[in-house]
Amino acid sequence: MTFDTIIRGGTIATAADTVKCDVGIQGGKITALGANLGEAREIVDATGHLVLPGGIDSHVHFAQPSGPGIVMADDFESGTRSAAFGGNTMVLPFAVQQKGESLRQVVKDYHAKADGNCYVDVSFHLVIVDTSERVLGQELPALVNDGYTSFKVFMTYEGMALSDMEMLNVMAVARETGALVMVHAENYDAIRFLTDRLERAGKTAPFFHGPSRPIPIEREATHRAISLAELVDVPVMIVHVSNGEAMEEIRRAQQKGLKVYGETCPQYLVLTEQDLEGLNMEGAKYVCSPPPRDKKSQSECWKGLQQGVFSVFSSDHCPFRYDDPQGKLTPKGRTSFRWVPNGIPGVETRLPILFSEGVKKGRISLNEFVALSSTNHAKTYGLYPKKGTIAVGADADIAIWDPDRSVTISQSLMHHNVDYTPYEGIEVTGWPVSTMVRGRFVVRDGKLTGAKGDGEYVSRDKSPLATPSGTGMF
Amino acid sequence: MTFDTIIRGGTIATAADTVKCDVGIQGGKITALGANLGEAREIVDATGHLVLPGGIDSHVHFAQPSGPGIVMADDFESGTRSAAFGGNTMVLPFAVQQKGESLRQVVKDYHAKADGNCYVDVSFHLVIVDTSERVLGQELPALVNDGYTSFKVFMTYEGMALSDMEMLNVMAVARETGALVMVHAENYDAIRFLTDRLERAGKTAPFFHGPSRPIPIEREATHRAISLAELVDVPVMIVHVSNGEAMEEIRRAQQKGLKVYGETCPQYLVLTEQDLEGLNMEGAKYVCSPPPRDKKSQSECWKGLQQGVFSVFSSDHCPFRYDDPQGKLTPKGRTSFRWVPNGIPGVETRLPILFSEGVKKGRISLNEFVALSSTNHAKTYGLYPKKGTIAVGADADIAIWDPDRSVTISQSLMHHNVDYTPYEGIEVTGWPVSTMVRGRFVVRDGKLTGAKGDGEYVSRDKSPLATPSGTGMF
Amino acid sequence: MTFDTIIRGGTIATAADTVKCDVGIQGGKITALGANLGEAREIVDATGHLVLPGGIDSHVHFAQPSGPGIVMADDFESGTRSAAFGGNTMVLPFAVQQKGESLRQVVKDYHAKADGNCYVDVSFHLVIVDTSERVLGQELPALVNDGYTSFKVFMTYEGMALSDMEMLNVMAVARETGALVMVHAENYDAIRFLTDRLERAGKTAPFFHGPSRPIPIEREATHRAISLAELVDVPVMIVHVSNGEAMEEIRRAQQKGLKVYGETCPQYLVLTEQDLEGLNMEGAKYVCSPPPRDKKSQSECWKGLQQGVFSVFSSDHCPFRYDDPQGKLTPKGRTSFRWVPNGIPGVETRLPILFSEGVKKGRISLNEFVALSSTNHAKTYGLYPKKGTIAVGADADIAIWDPDRSVTISQSLMHHNVDYTPYEGIEVTGWPVSTMVRGRFVVRDGKLTGAKGDGEYVSRDKSPLATPSGTGMF
Amino acid sequence: MTFDTIIRGGTIATAADTVKCDVGIQGGKITALGANLGEAREIVDATGHLVLPGGIDSHVHFAQPSGPGIVMADDFESGTRSAAFGGNTMVLPFAVQQKGESLRQVVKDYHAKADGNCYVDVSFHLVIVDTSERVLGQELPALVNDGYTSFKVFMTYEGMALSDMEMLNVMAVARETGALVMVHAENYDAIRFLTDRLERAGKTAPFFHGPSRPIPIEREATHRAISLAELVDVPVMIVHVSNGEAMEEIRRAQQKGLKVYGETCPQYLVLTEQDLEGLNMEGAKYVCSPPPRDKKSQSECWKGLQQGVFSVFSSDHCPFRYDDPQGKLTPKGRTSFRWVPNGIPGVETRLPILFSEGVKKGRISLNEFVALSSTNHAKTYGLYPKKGTIAVGADADIAIWDPDRSVTISQSLMHHNVDYTPYEGIEVTGWPVSTMVRGRFVVRDGKLTGAKGDGEYVSRDKSPLATPSGTGMF
Repeated sequence: MTFDTIIRGGTIATAADTVKCDVGIQGGKITALGANLGEAREIVDATGHLVLPGGIDSHVHFAQPSGPGIVMADDFESGTRSAAFGGNTMVLPFAVQQKGESLRQVVKDYHAKADGNCYVDVSFHLVIVDTSERVLGQELPALVNDGYTSFKVFMTYEGMALSDMEMLNVMAVARETGALVMVHAENYDAIRFLTDRLERAGKTAPFFHGPSRPIPIEREATHRAISLAELVDVPVMIVHVSNGEAMEEIRRAQQKGLKVYGETCPQYLVLTEQDLEGLNMEGAKYVCSPPPRDKKSQSECWKGLQQGVFSVFSSDHCPFRYDDPQGKLTPKGRTSFRWVPNGIPGVETRLPILFSEGVKKGRISLNEFVALSSTNHAKTYGLYPKKGTIAVGADADIAIWDPDRSVTISQSLMHHNVDYTPYEGIEVTGWPVSTMVRGRFVVRDGKLTGAKGDGEYVSRDKSPLATPSGTGMF
Repeated sequence: MTFDTIIRGGTIATAADTVKCDVGIQGGKITALGANLGEAREIVDATGHLVLPGGIDSHVHFAQPSGPGIVMADDFESGTRSAAFGGNTMVLPFAVQQKGESLRQVVKDYHAKADGNCYVDVSFHLVIVDTSERVLGQELPALVNDGYTSFKVFMTYEGMALSDMEMLNVMAVARETGALVMVHAENYDAIRFLTDRLERAGKTAPFFHGPSRPIPIEREATHRAISLAELVDVPVMIVHVSNGEAMEEIRRAQQKGLKVYGETCPQYLVLTEQDLEGLNMEGAKYVCSPPPRDKKSQSECWKGLQQGVFSVFSSDHCPFRYDDPQGKLTPKGRTSFRWVPNGIPGVETRLPILFSEGVKKGRISLNEFVALSSTNHAKTYGLYPKKGTIAVGADADIAIWDPDRSVTISQSLMHHNVDYTPYEGIEVTGWPVSTMVRGRFVVRDGKLTGAKGDGEYVSRDKSPLATPSGTGMF
Repeated sequence: MTFDTIIRGGTIATAADTVKCDVGIQGGKITALGANLGEAREIVDATGHLVLPGGIDSHVHFAQPSGPGIVMADDFESGTRSAAFGGNTMVLPFAVQQKGESLRQVVKDYHAKADGNCYVDVSFHLVIVDTSERVLGQELPALVNDGYTSFKVFMTYEGMALSDMEMLNVMAVARETGALVMVHAENYDAIRFLTDRLERAGKTAPFFHGPSRPIPIEREATHRAISLAELVDVPVMIVHVSNGEAMEEIRRAQQKGLKVYGETCPQYLVLTEQDLEGLNMEGAKYVCSPPPRDKKSQSECWKGLQQGVFSVFSSDHCPFRYDDPQGKLTPKGRTSFRWVPNGIPGVETRLPILFSEGVKKGRISLNEFVALSSTNHAKTYGLYPKKGTIAVGADADIAIWDPDRSVTISQSLMHHNVDYTPYEGIEVTGWPVSTMVRGRFVVRDGKLTGAKGDGEYVSRDKSPLATPSGTGMF
Repeated sequence: MTFDTIIRGGTIATAADTVKCDVGIQGGKITALGANLGEAREIVDATGHLVLPGGIDSHVHFAQPSGPGIVMADDFESGTRSAAFGGNTMVLPFAVQQKGESLRQVVKDYHAKADGNCYVDVSFHLVIVDTSERVLGQELPALVNDGYTSFKVFMTYEGMALSDMEMLNVMAVARETGALVMVHAENYDAIRFLTDRLERAGKTAPFFHGPSRPIPIEREATHRAISLAELVDVPVMIVHVSNGEAMEEIRRAQQKGLKVYGETCPQYLVLTEQDLEGLNMEGAKYVCSPPPRDKKSQSECWKGLQQGVFSVFSSDHCPFRYDDPQGKLTPKGRTSFRWVPNGIPGVETRLPILFSEGVKKGRISLNEFVALSSTNHAKTYGLYPKKGTIAVGADADIAIWDPDRSVTISQSLMHHNVDYTPYEGIEVTGWPVSTMVRGRFVVRDGKLTGAKGDGEYVSRDKSPLATPSGTGMF
């Protein structure tokens, strides 16, 4: 056996196992694991380090149009660079349709943005906004066949929210094509109703973003999305769950035997609504949807990770500059939370936060960390076994971690194009020091060693989790 | 003390007590209860009989326009006559707005239909279909003040279904005025989606009415209605609950401390979806919404009555003739269940069914029967203590029951204007033999002794159950 | 109609109704209720007052032997006097067997203590400690037939705790005789285990009474008692429930359709474990079992009262003098909480606390107050309709309340023979001013007007709630 | 790299991954996994086969004394031979103490039975029957240190059942030493109570074994065991769970965050109480405790496996010959089910049943099969990473499966020393064809190739799952 590279001396972890051995890499693939694999062109010394499957962040937003005059801070270049520094070897951003747009054209547009610009591998979820017959009847099935095997629908946001009928029609396509449906679950009407009331009461500061979409708004939409999926008999992924009540809806469905999956994010583990109370407009830095809740909700979200209600942990990286008239603080955004763009950056900090708060504090095992940060994403979204594990035959997508390095998260350490991090000042133990994509280090010992274009687009299989359970109404 | 009438020798039951004593009546009111009240102009011998508060059926439909060419079979005369024979002394039909109509005018129209035509007392719930500013901002608050203190909203039906935003706006008016909101909870979009699919598959027989609105459709809307009410912090009554899953949503809300009330009906205790399988179009006789479910759902509904999840038991009397081109079998109705008018008669059979299946079979106590059939209706809808009990000062609204009379329910016994009863052939023990409204027998020993016009309109107080719990979002 | 007494001008409440009318009394019975009953030997003016069924406290301890050198502070005289001042017209103390004693003799002994000494009516629950064949096979069935239709078993306490086998045998007798079983549910072994550990750690202050029997100890025994009753198919009353976890076990059983009933007490609504932290030995004043818990438990117990999980509210009056070597502070009691007698007084304060915290603060209705404090006790323990309501034919057992009187509870106001009240300093609104037993005032306008011996022993019917549900294992 | 053996061409599965690659073995250990590992002394062709971690059956009974005149059918030789043919490479039988015995001596005795007689590896759980100070204070802690890191307690069985106090004391030792407690959860008193009643009613056939220990008896003990563990703050494994109600207690505890683990067995997936109805004494073949339940319970147990409530799946192999006066049919056993020895064989059929009913029927994934049958046992009982996976550094304990072989289970295929299999006639797809223990084939292509003595005793680490959660009462 000959190898391009051997990673030696580290502790390898998968979603099930933790072993000490060499990892042999050839042609961008893992070709052997062994007690002593002999020699290679390059021997990487990982003594004292963890050798983990590279993180897969299956929920990020790059380069999306975000309303008049508002620009998303990260394009594919800065976004994937930031991802690489955060221990990720792959990200799944969204290709977002606008009303009236051809979905095929949307995909082309996002490829144009991404191709040649990425540091880590990428694949696209589709966001379905226009549910015309042409889109659902023709474009979408064809795109699923072409490897765009998941799509997201929104139950809120002006111009994006689908009606229940539209949701059902999209789900029916998912059922027919074997695609996986992701749902942003918040009740649009109820948000508008409360927003109107709050504004009329002069409650326009960023803080009121939270009260404008309280927990029942998320719980209701979660229950509804699950019910619609139950009627169509199609699996569904509820993304970015922020609290125990919405989680309970997912759990009840799972216990009934429905194929309902859940995702949570770092903001729901370490931030609270109090973070939106900053002086002046500082709270705008934390405006995202659903909003961070309270300590009890954090604790419930941890239980969801521990008990398997949530199978994936993502960042929902959605970057806007803070002190910028094209970011959080547009002139309109200063007049009301309603106009502050929703979203916070996090692709670079997702894994250190989960590792430190989870593994180091004894809440989850190292293997659970690997599952939640990488393997389950690959299995959920049709990337496994090419991605998501350290096993013979898999892509050599590897993050090398120093499990004992203490870091205080700070904007000065970030590689995104945003001007702040909402996790400023949080101390973590454990940090990804090197990131290898298909056998090549993109980041090594904390330094950028890759080039844009090293990351490739990956066409996906259908999700094995997306098969109907056979209990549907028709 | 002098009395117009003394009812002697019977067993009196209220929602709490069961005693043997005389009931003294003067001026249409109960003025004394006593071991021996002496003499009166008329002594009614109730030996061996039960003397109960007259039934209040808080969910009936009379004389509603029901779509092009379709006529509701009972007007106020036949409907209240049928009610009287069923042991009822009061009914609460709906005054139903159409899009664009003045709500005040709607009320006038229904008064015109009712005034002078009723055998038992009546009061109106309003059905809000048009949520324009004029209606919600002006007419509705004024009407609540005038004693129309409850209104119903629909989450389904063409031309009636309100959006979530409209629901919230109506609920906000209820909160401000202290009115009680009733909700018909089924997901309109999902029903249409499934109906389209069923029709495309050639499944158009009346039986498919059930599969077009399976349990999750009702459960989802129930959860949603409760969530919207939780956001506004307003009590809500979920009417005609048909199964355990929807009931569980109500129970969970109640256990959290929310003021959520529930109603069920005879069709959910003794009918099942199999009843819609009749030969030819016979299934149309049982088409109502939500549809009857299965044996397990019946059992769950009984638990709901026993355990207080449901506080009121109504008929949802909604009468259409079967063999009639203006009833169930319009030419269009023959082409698809979609066009079969929804609704079945039941104002006359509600109480015998509950008495026989409930009290006689040991599922509920006699006092619970009184509460579910009369007292709780009065307390829920602002009629108590004038109505709903046998107590000094209350109206002498009394039903005298023979608890041992065995009757096989049959169309030939009915006094409605429908040409069938969906309860044909059901054997019951216990039957109301005489019905007294404000001291005068409308029905006596099974014979009509009253005249149309004996029943009066009753203006209502605000419901004591309609006060906010103080846990709202704004 | 002629009356000994008419109570005029008050507001009468039953478990269902609230009306203004006269109450006519003759021969110790209520013989009429009327708008105006005319004249009587005595007219009692109750204007502005509430006229309620006298309280029935179905859980009190009087004159029980309580271990070497320890004396219960109240005998039947002082205990029933205190009860009368607290608005009660009947109490149900326990006739407590010791190992080896004839149960028949025990009953005779307690009759000897009570007969001629009571101010209000009494009846006895039996406490079964010796489960020998003679007791269970002969004495107990005979005593049930004689009107001692309920018995209590203990799952803890040295010399009293029954094994599961003994519990099953007692329950089998209950099933065969139609008696109702009451259970004190705490795990004896676990209490001893924790007590040993606490003492070894030097944690002997009264405060550690709480940590020696934490919530799981009560929840476990509750689940076990319910399971044993389920196996035998016999209804069971879980007494003095202190928290939401134990309550949840009862609720789950009720929802399954099992006949499981629950009781809670004032100490679980207004005291907490912090009350046991008093300086020196002051905490001993609050030592009772189960111990008061925390604010959340209080809130859960309120929900249990509101939602019907608990159908009776009792005092568990169990009186020991505080500063007394024969009471709480025996020499042994000073060495460890283990030896502090368990129990606190409360027969006089039960109703004002429930009225003020419940009715006045809007947590429960006046009718629910009547049900929880009187009617449900009568219905549960075979006393209805003789006791527990204001209805024609019932005993004239009546408490007249001033609903607006503000009182600060204080030892100086009490009529028990204890030297403290655990409710010292609590402010209440609403106070019972007069108490009438079978037509005669025992307390009138706050003054003792009765004599010991006015209260009589009442033989009881079998409980209508004690019939098997038919779902048993044999 | 040099290898003794290479397994080539198979599909390797771990608890997380499924890959095609070579497995290189040297010195009894897996030393490499690779796309092509080159040459070895022996190349095993596994083309078309699955290469899985050898099964670990953590719940088997061999050579236990079983009451007067009754002999367990399998000793360590026949038991481990049967295990090997069933695809197992390790078993964990029990070393069972009798009252008064030295636990150290018990361990010696079982070593004497096992040493040199086993075909697969073994390690012992201790069964604690005598809880004297000498045992708990001295012997047990020393034995835990010596690698006997788990012990089981019984809540039922004459002479074995521990009181709650004894359970607490054993749990306290577990907490102090870091050992894991396993619990057989059935209520002993309740079983005796029902057994007496059944016998008195002449219901003595084997069928009545089921009615003598209905579901509430298991649910109650499960709740109690969990509560006691909660008080001591010690993790606990509830073994052989048979139904949804007991499972629900485990689930509730897990959701609260308690470290409670669950096990189920094949008999609860494919047998029912009807199997005990056999003619004459045939039902005795299925007498085990808890007894098989009904179809609904089977379905619930599957959910428990799918949803992670159960983390281990064992056989509870407990072998008695059927037609044998020293087995099921002792003279006494013929008089009443009470005397029929409890237990059925299953060590050889456990894995084919789970594979066929689980993996082949789509209920669980292949990786879940590996986790439930091997990896989780190793992780739970301190054997990982030496045992339970296919990874570099692990023992070469491997089962090679033909996933498509169809077999009808039959006694003629079994290698145990019992004269029947309770799974007679069940058709399965998938069968273990070869079993390798530490690099040597014990069974190869369905033939015995090993010798007794090939299996070794394995001393165990403390379970990583046995750490307290820190929420205890003391």
